Amino acid sequence: MNIMDFLAPRYPLLIVLSGPSGVGKDTVLRRLQARRLPLHFVVTATNRSPRRGEVDGRDYFFISTAQFEKLIAENELLEYSVVYNDYKGVPKQQVRAALASGRDVIMRVDVQGAAKIRALVPEAVLIFLNAESPESLQRRLSARDADTPESLQIRLAAAQREVEQATLFDYLVINREQAVEATVDKIVAIIEAEHCRVKPRRVEL
Amino acid sequence: MNIMDFLAPRYPLLIVLSGPSGVGKDTVLRRLQARRLPLHFVVTATNRSPRRGEVDGRDYFFISTAQFEKLIAENELLEYSVVYNDYKGVPKQQVRAALASGRDVIMRVDVQGAAKIRALVPEAVLIFLNAESPESLQRRLSARDADTPESLQIRLAAAQREVEQATLFDYLVINREQAVEATVDKIVAIIEAEHCRVKPRRVEL
Repeated sequence: MNIMDFLAPRYPLLIVLSGPSGVGKDTVLRRLQARRLPLHFVVTATNRSPRRGEVDGRDYFFISTAQFEKLIAENELLEYSVVYNDYKGVPKQQVRAALASGRDVIMRVDVQGAAKIRALVPEAVLIFLNAESPESLQRRLSARDADTPESLQIRLAAAQREVEQATLFDYLVINREQAVEATVDKIVAIIEAEHCRVKPRRVEL
Repeated sequence: MNIMDFLAPRYPLLIVLSGPSGVGKDTVLRRLQARRLPLHFVVTATNRSPRRGEVDGRDYFFISTAQFEKLIAENELLEYSVVYNDYKGVPKQQVRAALASGRDVIMRVDVQGAAKIRALVPEAVLIFLNAESPESLQRRLSARDADTPESLQIRLAAAQREVEQATLFDYLVINREQAVEATVDKIVAIIEAEHCRVKPRRVEL
């Protein structure tokens, strides 16, 4: 090894943010986006129609069911879910293009999706976002007015099962209530530290 | 695993800062110290007498040759060197006490010392500080007025050999000229990220 090898290209990272339902993943990503780092935020593709105010390419990529099924058939989705007729997934091409431009890529997936990505892209950086306590997670879930007490119980049980998957992940970040900027600071620190690794994680897609 | 397991004790880290002679390790540590983090900076023990202005316990621990040899015999030094009658080393007890108080510990060692610590404490976090180019390292070395052209050549050759050891390390941080605060930011990010690891590095001494 030569001293000059240290100035080798900086390999962009694929960062996966996951965690139980209700933990605050979307808020954290919005605040991270506000920091204007050289970071590509993955936009999910879906076959449903845009709702009022939704913008193609910003909120989702709105594609047809036939286009979506073609992506599945060609193994061109990094991760996807099909619930009845509701298709959602991450096109590999979008991630490849962002990585090729040198930007790190960050995506939000549920815990099942993170396990799939770990298998498909072992070099991904997996961050598990958790609440500071079961009570805090319950408070966050109850704050969603769409939930009935029954659906809240189901969500809580699912969240507990999701927490059991945490050992799959590289990092755990506790998203304390009223401290979302501290959470974002930690994610930024993880990204910075990963870029200093002597053995970089080089993503192949 | 239960959600509450995430609130397990925070394991303090043993951080080792190394890198070629002249790269700026002392300056980086001084600037890091100015940030007032809960971080213990290791004070080296030596058998030499204090020079004018040096304070026992701050600059060095000044101990007798007999005391030093007792520490060697009892395997109570994390790392030490003996050059003629000049003894220098890091007492394990100091590191143990700081870790037990919950503080991370950081120490500066030369590249040979870092290899010894890697063998003795596999869970240590090893950071290799490097210059941005061979020319930059040469400029930094030449700036030390004590060096003759011959000793400069010897130092440069040694620095090149030290750089070849970089794969021993966990992290590489480039200490760019006129950007020491950015270097300190990276070290702080590495410490923060390490505390978020799902599999913490738990140091036993």
